[in-house]
Amino acid sequence: MGRLCVGLIGPGLIGKSLVQQLGQQTPYLRDKLGIHLSLVAVANSKRQLLADVDAAPLQLAGDWLERLQLQGAPLDLPAFARHVSAPGGWGVIVDCTASDSVPDHYESWLGSGLHVVTPNKKYSAALRAARGGGARLLAEASVGAGLPVLSTLRDLVETGDQVTRIEGILSGTLSYIFNTFRPGTPFSSVVAAAKDLGYTEPDPREDLSGMDVARKVVILARACGLSTELEDLRVESLVPEPLQALPGADEFMARLPEFDAEMAQRADAAAAEGGVLRYVGVVDVASGTASVTLQSFPADHAFAQLQGSDNLIAFTTQRYAATPLIVRGPGAGAAVTAAGVFGDILQIARSVAPRPAEAGKA
Amino acid sequence: MGRLCVGLIGPGLIGKSLVQQLGQQTPYLRDKLGIHLSLVAVANSKRQLLADVDAAPLQLAGDWLERLQLQGAPLDLPAFARHVSAPGGWGVIVDCTASDSVPDHYESWLGSGLHVVTPNKKYSAALRAARGGGARLLAEASVGAGLPVLSTLRDLVETGDQVTRIEGILSGTLSYIFNTFRPGTPFSSVVAAAKDLGYTEPDPREDLSGMDVARKVVILARACGLSTELEDLRVESLVPEPLQALPGADEFMARLPEFDAEMAQRADAAAAEGGVLRYVGVVDVASGTASVTLQSFPADHAFAQLQGSDNLIAFTTQRYAATPLIVRGPGAGAAVTAAGVFGDILQIARSVAPRPAEAGKA
Repeated sequence: MGRLCVGLIGPGLIGKSLVQQLGQQTPYLRDKLGIHLSLVAVANSKRQLLADVDAAPLQLAGDWLERLQLQGAPLDLPAFARHVSAPGGWGVIVDCTASDSVPDHYESWLGSGLHVVTPNKKYSAALRAARGGGARLLAEASVGAGLPVLSTLRDLVETGDQVTRIEGILSGTLSYIFNTFRPGTPFSSVVAAAKDLGYTEPDPREDLSGMDVARKVVILARACGLSTELEDLRVESLVPEPLQALPGADEFMARLPEFDAEMAQRADAAAAEGGVLRYVGVVDVASGTASVTLQSFPADHAFAQLQGSDNLIAFTTQRYAATPLIVRGPGAGAAVTAAGVFGDILQIARSVAPRPAEAGKA
Repeated sequence: MGRLCVGLIGPGLIGKSLVQQLGQQTPYLRDKLGIHLSLVAVANSKRQLLADVDAAPLQLAGDWLERLQLQGAPLDLPAFARHVSAPGGWGVIVDCTASDSVPDHYESWLGSGLHVVTPNKKYSAALRAARGGGARLLAEASVGAGLPVLSTLRDLVETGDQVTRIEGILSGTLSYIFNTFRPGTPFSSVVAAAKDLGYTEPDPREDLSGMDVARKVVILARACGLSTELEDLRVESLVPEPLQALPGADEFMARLPEFDAEMAQRADAAAAEGGVLRYVGVVDVASGTASVTLQSFPADHAFAQLQGSDNLIAFTTQRYAATPLIVRGPGAGAAVTAAGVFGDILQIARSVAPRPAEAGKA
């Protein structure tokens, strides 16, 4: 029986959902893969809780969050990592933060043989470190949450297909907004409805700026072998320029209607051609460029047929040339994002599970 | 550097495409995964060619097919398997046949520690043998060819999601036929056009019987944990009963127009409700039932929006409850099917690649 030690940083909605899923599946995975998943360390931005693996493993479904808050020691990431890589098993650090600084540590963790799994979109700087060595950096949930996006792209690349173009509706928020927005409905009222439904960030400008989509496009571009940086992207912000510097979200929402006529004009122009507007991220591998823009699509296009807040990612390749390979579905939410993270942990668990020869000896 | 020995049975269109892809990607995978993929044995239904691994590995892109035909020894599957599991590496047997009998050997191969990868839809009887031991049976390409269908379903199941329903358009041939068939067009002329385009089997009744779709539905049902057998399925054959026993395809095609009125009536009835006909496989996990039937879908349904000969598989689960997770795209063809097989080989390659501690020592 192998053991995979999991260290979780970031016990927010996704982290908590992940711990619950891990706890529920531990017995099944022990039987199925012959590997024991063990949560051995948790940390938030200030504190950490390290379990004595042999004497008293952290209770996966227990009171770990309360213990972290009450008994946690001050955060010490090097000590956290040493604990996860304790001898007698394999270790994986799961970064469920949206932090800018935690990814700075990935390279040293990977270098010391620890696997890293994250939904954090800021991970791409560490990608180089994951090449060559045995430790892996997996970030399926950073694009499309639980949808099989990066794993699909990796299989296309590694089996030698030539990806020519990736087009995606990569934000559930902006998917909802443009699936709902149509001629006759003020754009600002659609944004207000999305905000009321909790689909947007507290300040909707964070969604409308397109930067979240842009980060995902960078991840997709790099997975195609391009060296795209965020600064290289053409990103069309949907925040009107005069509203970008306003201090608060309320002020922004109050003044957004001033720009409804402009957006109505664009929607009308699209409708006049029988199309609809969609906010789309594109990686054009042939030209090596990437962009995030609002575009018009004809009614029979897969993007035009999207509903609700679904994501949709279309891969056009040498093998999928006439019609693309498409993955579609909800691309946000704690449970599906945690499942995407869990899927990556499973990839690693399978790679450290007993091998046939060893299984025979067990 | 690890070595993964590949033994290929079935050097047809898919097998040849696979060997070409393997040959092209071997250097990349050696650098990326630290593992050397080596084709060490090939066989057709009569002959086999075993390479001396150390002295003269089979040339992946070379004249192996000619040598198989000219110099091959009589087929001896036990000797073939022993050769693939030669010491000093890991072995995988790739069954690219559509044979009923080759899958009978999977259980003993798996028992001896050999991995098995196949697009052969008749593999499901061996699934039980793959449980528990370290050797794995992977068959991604048996459903949807290169589309990520079974890997997606496996991740849903293993991360603890509850699959409630799978609905799929699982035949490229029948997808094309019903995406093209509409009121005013005789059904028989659509079938004739599909036949002329090479989309159908030489005898289109093989497609229209629904048995190919039924086999895929059984695979999906079993991956959900059901114990569905082919005999349990309700399968609506699209071959009119009086034409089932006709000896030849030509006779069948000549008499199919007699039944155009019947199909036109169904298409008209669907159109009267604003819908279209689609031939759909369904696994209803809650009730434990599965079926393959011709149904009407409203115009805004994902099935109704399908074009060309695409497959589409929709997973409705506890986590994907409001809108399903959808995978869509071409689900047939030698290159994409071979890529699906190759993806499975990569899964296995990653699991036998050097581990972090070993990589550090290398």
